[in-house]
Amino acid sequence: MQTEPEVAVLRLGHRPGRDERITTHVGLTARALGADRVILAGQASSRADTVLDITDRFGGPFETETVESWRPIVRDWDGRVVHLTMYGLEVQEVEAEIRDAHQADRQPLLVVVGAEKVPFEVYEWADWNVAVTNQPHSEIASLAVFLDRLFEGRELDREWEDAEKVVIPQEVGKRVEAPADE
Amino acid sequence: MQTEPEVAVLRLGHRPGRDERITTHVGLTARALGADRVILAGQASSRADTVLDITDRFGGPFETETVESWRPIVRDWDGRVVHLTMYGLEVQEVEAEIRDAHQADRQPLLVVVGAEKVPFEVYEWADWNVAVTNQPHSEIASLAVFLDRLFEGRELDREWEDAEKVVIPQEVGKRVEAPADE
Repeated sequence: MQTEPEVAVLRLGHRPGRDERITTHVGLTARALGADRVILAGQASSRADTVLDITDRFGGPFETETVESWRPIVRDWDGRVVHLTMYGLEVQEVEAEIRDAHQADRQPLLVVVGAEKVPFEVYEWADWNVAVTNQPHSEIASLAVFLDRLFEGRELDREWEDAEKVVIPQEVGKRVEAPADE
Repeated sequence: MQTEPEVAVLRLGHRPGRDERITTHVGLTARALGADRVILAGQASSRADTVLDITDRFGGPFETETVESWRPIVRDWDGRVVHLTMYGLEVQEVEAEIRDAHQADRQPLLVVVGAEKVPFEVYEWADWNVAVTNQPHSEIASLAVFLDRLFEGRELDREWEDAEKVVIPQEVGKRVEAPADE
């Protein structure tokens, strides 16, 4: 988020046909829950338009980047790397250390989110392999819980710039407005 | 979770072809993050086998139920109903009240998770319409953050019964074992 060191989310291992909506949800979750940027690698790039469209309509700042090759991004990252995997250390055990690196040491954070069969280099290059439970579930769910815990809920209060539409919280029903001029 | 009042997740509005993997992720997220049961309504029923298979291999208790019609489930629910929607009240504003109803008043909780275009009755029948941000992102991400906050992280420590496979947390790499005999 804006005044904090960058948090970028890298989406790996997108399988065309199978992962279209999953990759879109990864991108939109990164945006909604406080990351500054999503990097869509290889065939995941096809999902960039939807994320850009939501950012146009609902605001930013949020960057959507596409790359052909993900390896240089992970290997050369100038900061710390978290890889979300059900095989990793439990999030409740390592989250404080990761928050310290991000907040106290002001390290930009790359959060790597794969599909099935993540190449072994990712496990090795990551500073932390982190499991949101050691159960098989969803990379979207893992990303969401990880970001909420990383930011300790601050992401829920972030403000959006240049939005065409703003949703006003309602007890019942839907209310969408154009933002007031400043 | 086992000693607490039931938490069930109802998946509505599944669109065949488009939502297959999303609905699977909703079911697996419900299981991994502490719900007791997922109810797959209408065409979402096609995804039950994957959730049952994961429960067989990684343990339970967790129930997977399929129903033709969701309306009686919501209308006749004996407890409280939460509907997750980007148009609702902010989760950080209402979560304490929902936790109180679930824990102190021992009310079973139904968490309704829709796709696009949820029928208006759901908004009316829900005790709380809850937004995990008022931004468009993912019903999987909303469910994950909601359950993690409902249980205040206790779901991460739950134990699994009758698992054929147990993942042992690792700093690097993967370790899967058959559980020790008791």
